[in-house]
Amino acid sequence: MADPWQECMDYAVTLARQAGEVVCDALKNEMNVMIKSSPADLVTATDQKVEKMLISAIKGKYPSHSFIGEESVAAGERSILTDNPTWIIDPIDGTTNFVHRFPFVAVSIGFVVNKKIEFGVVYSCVEDKMYTGRKGKGAFCNGQRLQVSRQEDITKSLLVTEFGSSRTPETIKIVLSNIERLLCLPTHGIRGVGTAAVNMCLVASGGADAYYEMGIHCWDMAGAGIIVTEAGGVLMDVTGGPFDLMSRRIIAASSRTLAERIAKEIQIISFQRDDED
Amino acid sequence: MADPWQECMDYAVTLARQAGEVVCDALKNEMNVMIKSSPADLVTATDQKVEKMLISAIKGKYPSHSFIGEESVAAGERSILTDNPTWIIDPIDGTTNFVHRFPFVAVSIGFVVNKKIEFGVVYSCVEDKMYTGRKGKGAFCNGQRLQVSRQEDITKSLLVTEFGSSRTPETIKIVLSNIERLLCLPTHGIRGVGTAAVNMCLVASGGADAYYEMGIHCWDMAGAGIIVTEAGGVLMDVTGGPFDLMSRRIIAASSRTLAERIAKEIQIISFQRDDED
Repeated sequence: MADPWQECMDYAVTLARQAGEVVCDALKNEMNVMIKSSPADLVTATDQKVEKMLISAIKGKYPSHSFIGEESVAAGERSILTDNPTWIIDPIDGTTNFVHRFPFVAVSIGFVVNKKIEFGVVYSCVEDKMYTGRKGKGAFCNGQRLQVSRQEDITKSLLVTEFGSSRTPETIKIVLSNIERLLCLPTHGIRGVGTAAVNMCLVASGGADAYYEMGIHCWDMAGAGIIVTEAGGVLMDVTGGPFDLMSRRIIAASSRTLAERIAKEIQIISFQRDDED
Repeated sequence: MADPWQECMDYAVTLARQAGEVVCDALKNEMNVMIKSSPADLVTATDQKVEKMLISAIKGKYPSHSFIGEESVAAGERSILTDNPTWIIDPIDGTTNFVHRFPFVAVSIGFVVNKKIEFGVVYSCVEDKMYTGRKGKGAFCNGQRLQVSRQEDITKSLLVTEFGSSRTPETIKIVLSNIERLLCLPTHGIRGVGTAAVNMCLVASGGADAYYEMGIHCWDMAGAGIIVTEAGGVLMDVTGGPFDLMSRRIIAASSRTLAERIAKEIQIISFQRDDED
């Protein structure tokens, strides 16, 4: 049987590249920055414009499909995942980077059917890296097959995470105490380039051994999630249970052993689920 | 009068590119990793080979010049800065990244005469970005002139720093409490790509507004330091006093105001100076 979603994936790659060009062009101009949930949660007209462009192009071709997009949700739409084919879109993953022209910003598109991710496309446009993952068919960056590091020993691992956009002192305290615990195991180090999607693609590429974060959203994880698993990696909830796309949290690791070890170390921060009112 | 050091700088660029090719080639092969001062302070045969290659090439052409190289110092040589023309070399800035194939590793060469940096060359080889700065003549990346962001408002700034390679609990505590204080001001965010030189070049490029770190060495700062100042940025000691190349600490910022504000916030961690026995 022919792959029923391959056409959608090809279209997603084409659109992600076009969107990335708009994002990269916008980096050359002045921007008008607005604040969302905290002084570190930013949005620009480009986020909104690129999301509209992506959704309207996909709707034109697949009018029966559903959508969850970061800026549509910010504008009041609900993010409920049904069994219908659903495009989960982050027009600019790394908006703070975008605002500062810190050179890691990605267009992220995940495609979910029956609540399972079928494919993901992450285009890191300044680096011109097109990451893709298709269920059962592997993960690639610019045509090159990706493979996680397979590291199992946390004391020899390099992790990626972020401080996040919350500036609530209690949240920051837990974020930092988790980092402290992991650093002191010891680990080789912790990095963060400022976008969940690119951090996860770095795990898929074998450059980092694991990524974890709490407080992010389904549109930060849907595209890169399947890129990690198709590169041989593992997605897990921070409790050590199964990964839940709407839970606002993730461990993406190069091995199950490493993911479980991280789950054992980190203290959980509660965030309202993406599908909760 | 012709620039007395231009020929040295041209040679440094040629050598940094050659060294970067060796480093990038080595990424394709198995590596043998050794531990230096802590489980997170690593070295490989490539660090040592590239440093030897650089120093022997420069010595051949400039036999009267002096050298301070990371691996020569690790092997027991002293790092005393005299008034003699001195090449300060880090063969691989970001060795932990290198070991993990996390794609930010740089060859860093600083050239100092009468204790003043005359030029700096930082070649981020996986990205193929050649950063250069020549005193009084500007800073460039792959031929494009660099300019810092000029940001003065810390609450609108994006910072770069690292957790460092120390795994001493007291040191980690101060590193994290400094991050906590800066995050809560608030700032837009804090990133870190795992190499001092590339972090500083990101400030020079305007992508980040300031970098600070304690515990690094003169070879981490000499090359990128002048790239920052020639891009319009400021180097400062973490006390707020003048920058001292041998002090193991730095603030590199896009404006004096921002550098002073960071100096006011951070608690100092003492490290033995590079020129102390």
